[in-house]
Amino acid sequence: MRDIFHQALEDVQARVIEISELVTVSIDKATRAFGKGDVALAEEVIADDKKIDELTRSLDEQAIQLLAMQQPVARDLRVVVTALRVTASLERMGDMAEHIAQLARTRYPERAIPKGLKDTFKRMGELDVEIARELTKLLAAPTAETALPIADAIRNSDDDVDELHAGVFEKVLSDTFQGDSGAVIDATLASRYHERFADHAVSIAKKTVYLHTGAWDADAALDARIHAEAPPV
Amino acid sequence: MRDIFHQALEDVQARVIEISELVTVSIDKATRAFGKGDVALAEEVIADDKKIDELTRSLDEQAIQLLAMQQPVARDLRVVVTALRVTASLERMGDMAEHIAQLARTRYPERAIPKGLKDTFKRMGELDVEIARELTKLLAAPTAETALPIADAIRNSDDDVDELHAGVFEKVLSDTFQGDSGAVIDATLASRYHERFADHAVSIAKKTVYLHTGAWDADAALDARIHAEAPPV
Repeated sequence: MRDIFHQALEDVQARVIEISELVTVSIDKATRAFGKGDVALAEEVIADDKKIDELTRSLDEQAIQLLAMQQPVARDLRVVVTALRVTASLERMGDMAEHIAQLARTRYPERAIPKGLKDTFKRMGELDVEIARELTKLLAAPTAETALPIADAIRNSDDDVDELHAGVFEKVLSDTFQGDSGAVIDATLASRYHERFADHAVSIAKKTVYLHTGAWDADAALDARIHAEAPPV
Repeated sequence: MRDIFHQALEDVQARVIEISELVTVSIDKATRAFGKGDVALAEEVIADDKKIDELTRSLDEQAIQLLAMQQPVARDLRVVVTALRVTASLERMGDMAEHIAQLARTRYPERAIPKGLKDTFKRMGELDVEIARELTKLLAAPTAETALPIADAIRNSDDDVDELHAGVFEKVLSDTFQGDSGAVIDATLASRYHERFADHAVSIAKKTVYLHTGAWDADAALDARIHAEAPPV
């Protein structure tokens, strides 16, 4: 039988995963709303974001109470500290989904995606959804062995998002781009929101490396792993 | 004589303030570099950001070690937890200064500020610098009585920044705006970076309200205060 403290600790972990699942639903809905100009779906995302905000705030509070009442040590402490350190990023990921939904709503009944950028944003949206799904798996991963490959995958997808983000600016600045200033603003902001969404996932991935390994320099830990696996050049 | 634990605690607080001071220097330099197209100043900001990143990472590590070794309680715990919760925002404020500097550097020898927006960005920059200075004072404030008015001031300045941010889009979308797509992208991103810089300060301000009062709902605490002070309408 688990004692009350360990039940509370499991509850903290379960709630981190729950928020990550909600963020996944939000970014999935937001990118579909943005792609199709679906204002009802956009409204859902905007409403759901309030719930994500509330859940992250209450999780923070629970984590700090655990610190205060139970004074956890070793891995237990790392679980609580990691929860505290990732909630802000999860909350921001929810905000990015909400911002994308806002763009869809503002432009309705037009579509928010400027001409010539449909495929790019479709792919960025898919990558963000994929990253959110991987993030939930990562947060549920019980060991470093299961977590590290997922963290790698998130970093790789983030690189792809960064490339698409750079491509948006290239397209907008090219002679063939036909949009007006409003289209340029939409493209710039939407691309930035998609890119930041992925960045926050990478930031969380780094923090879960610490959770599992206690290694502070997650970059070095992940880089060492990637270099060890890369074929010789 | 202070014991070792309380010295370590004071050291944590001193380092939070030190990072806030560095962020203030960075945003001051960044907005000047952006205003004047000063690439040397922009390079300084970009180099300084690495230092801010390193300092926030090492402060996080120190705070977690304090949690692990000393298991602080009550206000001592709140000091450590607050440090942990504000470093990410301070680090992001440094990033925003760096992004503004990057815009200045990318456009050199041109100026990055699109025509017609010089005054707006000058004022946004001044507000961000003012907010950063207030934030340092807030982080050094010893009591709720000294902290809360500073938190209010930061929220008020943030409202001003938000208004200017909305004004940038209005200007860019107006018929009189003469910039090309590159100018629209620059204006959109620069305005967003200035606005996010101020947002992070508000987020930190809320977290320091918790530090002083233990009240979790900083919004409610600050709103109650502002409403209490507002003249009757």
